[in-house]
Amino acid sequence: MFATFEGIGGCGKSTQIKKIAKAIEREGHEVIWTREPGGSPGAEEIRSLILTGDAEKWSAETEILLFNAARRDHLERLVWPSLEMGKIVLSDRFVDSTRVYQGVARSDLRGLVDRLHNEAISFEADLTLIIDVTAEEGLRRMGVAARDEQDRFDEMGLKFQEDLRAGYLALAREANRYVVVDGHGTPDEVFARVWEVFRTSLPKT
Amino acid sequence: MFATFEGIGGCGKSTQIKKIAKAIEREGHEVIWTREPGGSPGAEEIRSLILTGDAEKWSAETEILLFNAARRDHLERLVWPSLEMGKIVLSDRFVDSTRVYQGVARSDLRGLVDRLHNEAISFEADLTLIIDVTAEEGLRRMGVAARDEQDRFDEMGLKFQEDLRAGYLALAREANRYVVVDGHGTPDEVFARVWEVFRTSLPKT
Repeated sequence: MFATFEGIGGCGKSTQIKKIAKAIEREGHEVIWTREPGGSPGAEEIRSLILTGDAEKWSAETEILLFNAARRDHLERLVWPSLEMGKIVLSDRFVDSTRVYQGVARSDLRGLVDRLHNEAISFEADLTLIIDVTAEEGLRRMGVAARDEQDRFDEMGLKFQEDLRAGYLALAREANRYVVVDGHGTPDEVFARVWEVFRTSLPKT
Repeated sequence: MFATFEGIGGCGKSTQIKKIAKAIEREGHEVIWTREPGGSPGAEEIRSLILTGDAEKWSAETEILLFNAARRDHLERLVWPSLEMGKIVLSDRFVDSTRVYQGVARSDLRGLVDRLHNEAISFEADLTLIIDVTAEEGLRRMGVAARDEQDRFDEMGLKFQEDLRAGYLALAREANRYVVVDGHGTPDEVFARVWEVFRTSLPKT
């Protein structure tokens, strides 16, 4: 079983993935938790190439190709071998982040994202949890004052977070594997909701 | 005009590209000569990611994605802007190297190479010179004794060089932009043949 965690910044997915990993282990499963971009030595090298440097370093198209290279390496070296060994793999972000960030919020390249994914990867999660919080709540948790950035591109701006959130909620309607979970409340309250989804989806031990 | 130089190792393309650049300048054109993988700061960073590390570092699929990312950056940052300024651009290797190395000789992924190129790049040279030498001559010039490597993968082996050469010669039949030039003889003899092709293809000054 391959499950991915998605959502806007500050939605709490990194906190939840660790709690879920522990809960799944208590049920007697072997669990691997990982993240994208990165998750394997080669993919981590590509990650630092993507994330360092100034904002104009890569075009959206080049960035999408680099994400695909990192994802392919991550799958080949970690995810696919772990699944073959019968482990449950949890990933903090996967292709749906590229669909929403590069496909909707940062640039309008959803078609290119999907076509490259189909050619180079052609693999989807069994279950994708979208942890949903409002743009204001995500920014508050990230420690950034919510600012209304109507007129320029700013990833910390309210408008960008709202676009991301809308992108995720629209994506959630495209396939049954998406489950949107309300991310408001304490970590334990959110965990109870996430675990309810997981518990019923887990394979028998 | 965008012209690319291709051929097996030791065919002399790096020597010829410099001679051709000078000759084109003498005709009154502005010329840029560049190379792949690399040719722009970002693409050179991807180049070192591709070329360093052990042979198993990247799968063929990941490598093809990294070549596409480097190529896209090279085109956006150097080739396309130079062409827009009316310059003649000469590149030591381009997508045909990926078609032959990853598509035929190292792995059998020509279909994937072409599909990714069509999605992510969708741009071909106006003229592609394939400088053709025998596998033995290429190895001799690279200073490597020709060895018959029938039973294992070895890029310096005769069998690999023969596969590459056959790959290039087969590719040359696919489109009119390919011109195969005999690369045997002295650099000046080869230059006379290459220049004959170029001279008639140059735009008017």
